[in-house]
Amino acid sequence: MRILYHIPLSPACRKIRLILAEKRLPFELMTEKVWEKREEFLKFNPVGTVPVLVEENGLAIPESYAISEYLEEAYPDTSLLGRTLGERVEVRRLVSWMEGVFSQEVTDKLLGEKYMKRFLRKGNPDGTAIRQGYTALYFYLEYLGWLAEMRIWLAGSFFSQADLTAAAYLSSLDFIGDIDWSRIPAVKEWYARVKCRPCFRSLLQDRISGITPPIHYADLDF
Amino acid sequence: MRILYHIPLSPACRKIRLILAEKRLPFELMTEKVWEKREEFLKFNPVGTVPVLVEENGLAIPESYAISEYLEEAYPDTSLLGRTLGERVEVRRLVSWMEGVFSQEVTDKLLGEKYMKRFLRKGNPDGTAIRQGYTALYFYLEYLGWLAEMRIWLAGSFFSQADLTAAAYLSSLDFIGDIDWSRIPAVKEWYARVKCRPCFRSLLQDRISGITPPIHYADLDF
Repeated sequence: MRILYHIPLSPACRKIRLILAEKRLPFELMTEKVWEKREEFLKFNPVGTVPVLVEENGLAIPESYAISEYLEEAYPDTSLLGRTLGERVEVRRLVSWMEGVFSQEVTDKLLGEKYMKRFLRKGNPDGTAIRQGYTALYFYLEYLGWLAEMRIWLAGSFFSQADLTAAAYLSSLDFIGDIDWSRIPAVKEWYARVKCRPCFRSLLQDRISGITPPIHYADLDF
Repeated sequence: MRILYHIPLSPACRKIRLILAEKRLPFELMTEKVWEKREEFLKFNPVGTVPVLVEENGLAIPESYAISEYLEEAYPDTSLLGRTLGERVEVRRLVSWMEGVFSQEVTDKLLGEKYMKRFLRKGNPDGTAIRQGYTALYFYLEYLGWLAEMRIWLAGSFFSQADLTAAAYLSSLDFIGDIDWSRIPAVKEWYARVKCRPCFRSLLQDRISGITPPIHYADLDF
């Protein structure tokens, strides 16, 4: 069976779970305590990060970007990148933005400071970073809202990796209660549509010891 | 004419310059003072970062990852990603590692603290970060050296984006005199081979006001 090594709240891991599920590729989830630097795991990815996907034939694919491109090339039937060069540029631009600037300026400063530091045994949360994270979050959510108002899906008229990536990042922040949906109606309407898709089910059922998500987290009609 | 908006010392921009040159695609370089948040430029990339490639037909492609994948799809003749799924996974794993962990733990802490902060008007260098950057640099260079000893090129027997990306990152650090090549003979031998390729010429001719590169920077026989 295909295995995805992951950490439940990691948005990059959630993105891969969503892509696999959207493409209807069965997989088993294995939580990897990356801070333990397990030797068997470092053989799959010397850098020691998750996600890592291991195919049934033994091929190990580390790194969110490498996995998502691999899945498009190996299983092209349900394309999540768009067809034309221009569409694919737009999808990858948005994926890159979420996994780059958004991840560093928002996720690392909220989820990172408040929870991942504890999981990864890296010290105490930094209050200044958390405040900067909230400011950046609502700044970027406005841009997401603008996209959601202008288009059917984030990258255009087609459902894509851009939607799954953005939804993965927001779902992690929603799990820790960091998103006030009433402030961003256009994003909420788009997110509700993604949340209803069958690929999203497993994310909504996640239970993590020590963190209770807000009630609306798993509610499709939030 | 195709235009690449860049900052000379940005490794991500250098990577795109190398890919364009290796694919023999003519382009014009335009330095973008990203901190000025020029309105015309924000139309190409709302996040305001470089590199951004603008094709002659007007298609604007922001983000290093989106540009390099676009160039492979639009101009597949000189493939820099490998042929099999496994080869492509390995190339993208290494690209992702350089642009992710290496960029954050090394480049941001050396080039970022010592020079980019000044260019981007973001305050004074942080000595602790710089020390952490040097430690991480030689830790990761050992891994690069191990790859260079085991294989003809970094991702295997074929020249790829992995070589161009790693060389781009090292060339920026070499420009500011941060690499002691005598400590890493295997990396030096590999880098000398990349440096000799015609695609590298323009990088070696870069002149940046206020920074004098070490004499060996442009020397092919360093």
